Amino acid sequence: MTTLPGILDIRAAAERLSGLIVETPLIESPELNRRHGGRILFKPETLQRTGSFKIRGAYNKLSTLSEEERGRGVVAFSSGNHAQGVAASAAMFGVRAVIAMPADAPPMKIGNVRRMGAEVVTFDRFKEDRMTVVRPYIEQGMALVPPFDDPAIIAGQGTIGLELMRQAKVLGVALDAVIIPCGGGGLSSGVSVAVKDASPSTQVWAVEPEHFDDTRRSLAKGERVANEPGYSSICDALLTAEPGAITFEINRKNLAGAIAVSDEAAAQAMRDAMAYLKLVVEPGGCVAFAALSSGEIDLAGKTVAVVLSGGNVDFSTYAGIMAAA
Amino acid sequence: MTTLPGILDIRAAAERLSGLIVETPLIESPELNRRHGGRILFKPETLQRTGSFKIRGAYNKLSTLSEEERGRGVVAFSSGNHAQGVAASAAMFGVRAVIAMPADAPPMKIGNVRRMGAEVVTFDRFKEDRMTVVRPYIEQGMALVPPFDDPAIIAGQGTIGLELMRQAKVLGVALDAVIIPCGGGGLSSGVSVAVKDASPSTQVWAVEPEHFDDTRRSLAKGERVANEPGYSSICDALLTAEPGAITFEINRKNLAGAIAVSDEAAAQAMRDAMAYLKLVVEPGGCVAFAALSSGEIDLAGKTVAVVLSGGNVDFSTYAGIMAAA
Repeated sequence: MTTLPGILDIRAAAERLSGLIVETPLIESPELNRRHGGRILFKPETLQRTGSFKIRGAYNKLSTLSEEERGRGVVAFSSGNHAQGVAASAAMFGVRAVIAMPADAPPMKIGNVRRMGAEVVTFDRFKEDRMTVVRPYIEQGMALVPPFDDPAIIAGQGTIGLELMRQAKVLGVALDAVIIPCGGGGLSSGVSVAVKDASPSTQVWAVEPEHFDDTRRSLAKGERVANEPGYSSICDALLTAEPGAITFEINRKNLAGAIAVSDEAAAQAMRDAMAYLKLVVEPGGCVAFAALSSGEIDLAGKTVAVVLSGGNVDFSTYAGIMAAA
Repeated sequence: MTTLPGILDIRAAAERLSGLIVETPLIESPELNRRHGGRILFKPETLQRTGSFKIRGAYNKLSTLSEEERGRGVVAFSSGNHAQGVAASAAMFGVRAVIAMPADAPPMKIGNVRRMGAEVVTFDRFKEDRMTVVRPYIEQGMALVPPFDDPAIIAGQGTIGLELMRQAKVLGVALDAVIIPCGGGGLSSGVSVAVKDASPSTQVWAVEPEHFDDTRRSLAKGERVANEPGYSSICDALLTAEPGAITFEINRKNLAGAIAVSDEAAAQAMRDAMAYLKLVVEPGGCVAFAALSSGEIDLAGKTVAVVLSGGNVDFSTYAGIMAAA
């Protein structure tokens, strides 16, 4: 049995990451506060190294490997943001990284991974099993850095929750809710541990793309269920098949609930982030923001934090979404 | 004779603004550092309240009015960012604001000003004199809040320099240069006073749009000269006729020089800001970033700060510039 990561693991991760990553600020807009009738504090991990939060977990994972293990290099599969986090972390440790990426991942993400010095092998995510792609490297002795279902990864992502609670305290506010994008659940579970440790009454919500609401349906059923195949979404960062075993174990205890939002709602939130926050947010990074308009979270007179988890989106996709205003 | 604003005025402005505005963070990109062969620290005033730095000077100016003067309301003319700064400051003090804006100002800027509760009167900037438009309000007893050539405005904008030098110190770096967008010179002159006070050897550069390089040509000639009429630029925030009397008096002493950049260079910098910083920057707000590629500033092994002064750009303009990648 794997031990669930706890607050001490998150604090240890924060010490390892200190000075190496950006402590992303809290940003707010009087206009958006007015619109929602509450106070909305945005945590833009778009401004994080590699353009998403993923470097927190990846670097923490690499830190927990022995020097000998790490020296043999690391391997990962990812649609893009985890890939960049692993590539940047491997570069920081000066070790080899091989990343298996879907051939249809955003070209910007693939390009960024290559520029960081990692080797990219692409695969067809509809026909090939990603484990088959990475297995030869694991057999050579390289360590797999999983995208979410791993205690060190979860603890790394949880450092966002530590920062958030500390920053809210400096502002003198108590958070009624924290709202977090959710793919496999690494970010939401890690952040939930830190939030609940500091403030048990703060609600933690996970937000998923429509048709990829495996966490929402798993919470309803009380056990992990997978997504129906055959759907697509512009939220490329969040297209996981089902919740992780460890992440779901944490999320079932800590979450107030999960919410599904449409691609159009995510696109509208991207335009609002551009207009009111001046932040470039990718579709999957914007779903928690989109959930503010779902009506499922009570915002009247409340103070809530929204994690904007990444900003890695191609020019053409972004221009198209902006032009549709 | 007007007394030039000094470091004590800037410190007093910072105290008045404390807690009311965003202390914008320093952001950097390993990729951009590699490209320029130095360390580039960006100060994104795009994340400031109202989407630009202008609220710093406007709020400070309103603070220096007597309660009776302020109670009669304030009036200003501006292409947009100063208008938003004045409108937001007037709303914070609960006083009336009338803003004269060019009819061809970006609709987003005009809309933002109205949403903040200010009255907007539009004028044709090719045919009408803006002073004629605001005079009736001044005759009613309303106080004019000038866009740049005023000691309290300059001191307010200078608070960016205080933050910048303090933040650089926390990072343990000495700044070789600070690079600043320049219209009438309020931002560059104010920041230069704070920078030179903390570090006399740090170079301060102003950057202007091509054909609106009045500060560059004024520095060369040793006296204020105006721009040639008949030109246009996408950098709507920086289209002033000539340097201010006070701002130029400061800038001629403090600046290492001024640089002119093309609209295409500004657009390319906007795309780089989107891709590497995940920040939405308006054309005029991006000229200091664009100047990094001009070859006029020595970056090799240096540490420089770049002010991104605003992010108020319409969806259609922004989408067009992104799509041109």
